[in-house]
Amino acid sequence: MFESAEIGHSIDKDTFRKMMPALREALLDAQYDLKEQANFPVLILIHGFDGAGRGETMNLINEWLDPRLIDTVAFASPNDEARARPWMWRYWRELPANGRIGMFFGSYYSDALFERVFSRSDRDAFDRQIFDILRFERMLTLDGAVVLKFWFHLSRDKQKQRLKQLEQDPATSWRVTKTDWEHYERYDKIRKYGEHMLRLTNTAHAPWIIIDGEDANYRGLTVANTILEAIRNRIGQAVLTTDRVEAPPLLAPIDNKLVLDTLQLDQKLDKDGYQKKLDQLQGRLNKLTRDPRFARHSLVLAFEGNDAAGKGGSIRRITQALDARRYRVVPVAAPTQEEKAQPWLWRFWRNVPGKGGITIFDRSWYGRVLVERVEGFASEADWMRAYYEINDFEHQLTENGAIVLKFWLAISKEEQLERFKGREDTGFKRFKITDEDWRNRDKWDLYRQAVSDMVDRTSTSKVPWTLVEANNKYFARIKILTTICDALEARLSE
Amino acid sequence: MFESAEIGHSIDKDTFRKMMPALREALLDAQYDLKEQANFPVLILIHGFDGAGRGETMNLINEWLDPRLIDTVAFASPNDEARARPWMWRYWRELPANGRIGMFFGSYYSDALFERVFSRSDRDAFDRQIFDILRFERMLTLDGAVVLKFWFHLSRDKQKQRLKQLEQDPATSWRVTKTDWEHYERYDKIRKYGEHMLRLTNTAHAPWIIIDGEDANYRGLTVANTILEAIRNRIGQAVLTTDRVEAPPLLAPIDNKLVLDTLQLDQKLDKDGYQKKLDQLQGRLNKLTRDPRFARHSLVLAFEGNDAAGKGGSIRRITQALDARRYRVVPVAAPTQEEKAQPWLWRFWRNVPGKGGITIFDRSWYGRVLVERVEGFASEADWMRAYYEINDFEHQLTENGAIVLKFWLAISKEEQLERFKGREDTGFKRFKITDEDWRNRDKWDLYRQAVSDMVDRTSTSKVPWTLVEANNKYFARIKILTTICDALEARLSE
Repeated sequence: MFESAEIGHSIDKDTFRKMMPALREALLDAQYDLKEQANFPVLILIHGFDGAGRGETMNLINEWLDPRLIDTVAFASPNDEARARPWMWRYWRELPANGRIGMFFGSYYSDALFERVFSRSDRDAFDRQIFDILRFERMLTLDGAVVLKFWFHLSRDKQKQRLKQLEQDPATSWRVTKTDWEHYERYDKIRKYGEHMLRLTNTAHAPWIIIDGEDANYRGLTVANTILEAIRNRIGQAVLTTDRVEAPPLLAPIDNKLVLDTLQLDQKLDKDGYQKKLDQLQGRLNKLTRDPRFARHSLVLAFEGNDAAGKGGSIRRITQALDARRYRVVPVAAPTQEEKAQPWLWRFWRNVPGKGGITIFDRSWYGRVLVERVEGFASEADWMRAYYEINDFEHQLTENGAIVLKFWLAISKEEQLERFKGREDTGFKRFKITDEDWRNRDKWDLYRQAVSDMVDRTSTSKVPWTLVEANNKYFARIKILTTICDALEARLSE
Repeated sequence: MFESAEIGHSIDKDTFRKMMPALREALLDAQYDLKEQANFPVLILIHGFDGAGRGETMNLINEWLDPRLIDTVAFASPNDEARARPWMWRYWRELPANGRIGMFFGSYYSDALFERVFSRSDRDAFDRQIFDILRFERMLTLDGAVVLKFWFHLSRDKQKQRLKQLEQDPATSWRVTKTDWEHYERYDKIRKYGEHMLRLTNTAHAPWIIIDGEDANYRGLTVANTILEAIRNRIGQAVLTTDRVEAPPLLAPIDNKLVLDTLQLDQKLDKDGYQKKLDQLQGRLNKLTRDPRFARHSLVLAFEGNDAAGKGGSIRRITQALDARRYRVVPVAAPTQEEKAQPWLWRFWRNVPGKGGITIFDRSWYGRVLVERVEGFASEADWMRAYYEINDFEHQLTENGAIVLKFWLAISKEEQLERFKGREDTGFKRFKITDEDWRNRDKWDLYRQAVSDMVDRTSTSKVPWTLVEANNKYFARIKILTTICDALEARLSE
């Protein structure tokens, strides 16, 4: 992979001086077009060998472009907040918004590569990380991002020569650190594992650009030109939200029998039985979340359901049992301006709990395949690929120790009508019923289909959906609490 | 202070049921008015003795109000990100935006109180924390926030009784933890230090509300009613941005001689001398930031100056010497929507570096007393109190170990004109010159006055302003780098 980067590229001073002004001007134009259009971000990753000019290139980009529109992030070791979460969490956090350029100095690639080089991970773990990266970049690029991955290359001899050269000059000797030499000693390993990683992540939508790191002029012009052409090429293009192949439509079963139809919505529980069970279950839940073994896990609960199905009441019966410092309830409404400028899952990644933490989502990422599908807020291509992205998201959570549970609270159309009327009659409940609720009710069958597809495509053995018969609130709450306690107990004793 | 909370308050069930619906309805109305108006936030702090119903009250507020407009945050021990920053940082981070209700369960008051109770702080440290709190709440309320501080009270006997009672019932015994009993054993200390703290922070703009914690009905209605009246009272009121007393105007000196006039802007340095010194200083700076002693500090640099004075170029000469993982450059432009819904310093608090970190602000919080003053974006009352708030902010940074340096890059009006013209003639520099720059130039004298006031009112021995004669870029950069190195050296060897 590195052949062309070892044949010796260079640009003389005069040529550089001649080309530079026009290139800078064009880059600035492209950057302002990007800002104007503001419908995609550019993510630049800087990798490669020490001494191959990564730092200088970063400075050059910040000098040639308008630095106010660039977010440069250099990643050191993860702090404790990041360590308590899936490893990709800290990169989600730093993604550039639409219209901006993000530059990562060191990234998820460094984590994966150096863990392998220093034998902290084995081949399987390395490949699992590469697979995580592949899915992440696929999501980014389908979302419209331009992803440019630079590998600054030097041969072993050239690296040694470069480090020595810097070291000998008193004015630059401080640039060479102990780490540089430690890495130099592992040149062969870095190269070997690096090549493996680059090969597996060298996709059509996010290819690697290998740069000969020897000559500063060549390096600078090549990087600048690559960025320029990538932005120019994407400006004005429609965002490619899925593979070029059209997805086949999701069809309803011919007998129109859907999974929700199998539920016995009217299951009963009386008030006395409820109160007794509630106390017991809340006690059980409290103990489970204080179990020392829970510190290695986290709990993520997602609540979806028909309007007026009792999500809020159910959530309160859970939080009553929890230490307030452990949990957070995240009500999910329309995304904010800031959230809209990011991949759609970004606002959920933001709220991923750390180890020992609990996050309860009142509505969730499933809005993508429910309301956004039914109302047409997302294109079919977008919500179709969301099933995959959701499973990927939940997979990353469970891999990190999270216990993820999803509840669909189902009530009958008749029960909903009664509750709507009841809310309109009670002053302090009136805020819970809006015109939108009535409109959603008209789309009952579309939602029924969407829920069915959602369950079929995202209920997995590790992260199953729990369908809750909720015509009777007591019954529903007890079923939810029991499900949570059982799941916690099972996972903690694994 | 706790007298009235020990005389035994209670509300019978019937009265409660009678009052509740109207109160809930009114609360929701108030909450929606708050959301509509969206020009101030409500911050609710929940404190007091274990067993006095703090958790239940939190649940009740979330049940009675629309929880989608409430941000509830329970604070546990600070994580390593928070520990590396001034102690108030994590509370800044969680402030509710305008139009929303924030509920802190445990807050800066708990930090201060329990450090004192468990003898981890002495009386002086305790009082310093109380003073930090006072300034913080003063800023919040002058900014328009409604701050409601509840202390849920129980006498020692009542607390014991309550804990025993909960413990004896198998259904609720899990609610009583070891920590509750540990706190009970320290009841007298908590009460004594708590009273001291409450007394000193019981201000007119953010008074404490002491609640008898014995009776759930009384507690709930009182809290709900307090919130309701506080919001109602503030809705429609103009925000009080300063003390009721009008500030005396800042006058220019009668001879119109200002601090900037004393600078010799034309000091020279030739290219050779520059290059040599630059290499030396960059090496020195690099070593200083890698000194093990720097890990207990951080570096905050703020750059201000006339348009075209060379801020960007100076910053790049600094970052060239730094490890990319250590520093972040924060370009400061107009605040975003999200930032506008917060106290004005919020966006700078967001970017405070942790120990061992470096943040370079390209323009800074001084915009408040420069462009916002001159252009009238901030009222006189607002920018007048900003001097105090800025000094407070910088004080909190230095108390935490930060080395804070502020540079004003000064060029002459003639030099500026030449640079403007030069920029217009060079394609890739054209983006650096806008109509706004020409307009600012017309306000040269107003800026001159603003800069002078700024220096007079915010240059302190710990956080001095450095005025940089910048007609010659080489001279300016060397002066800046020298200042930084000297300051670092002095502070590290303290």
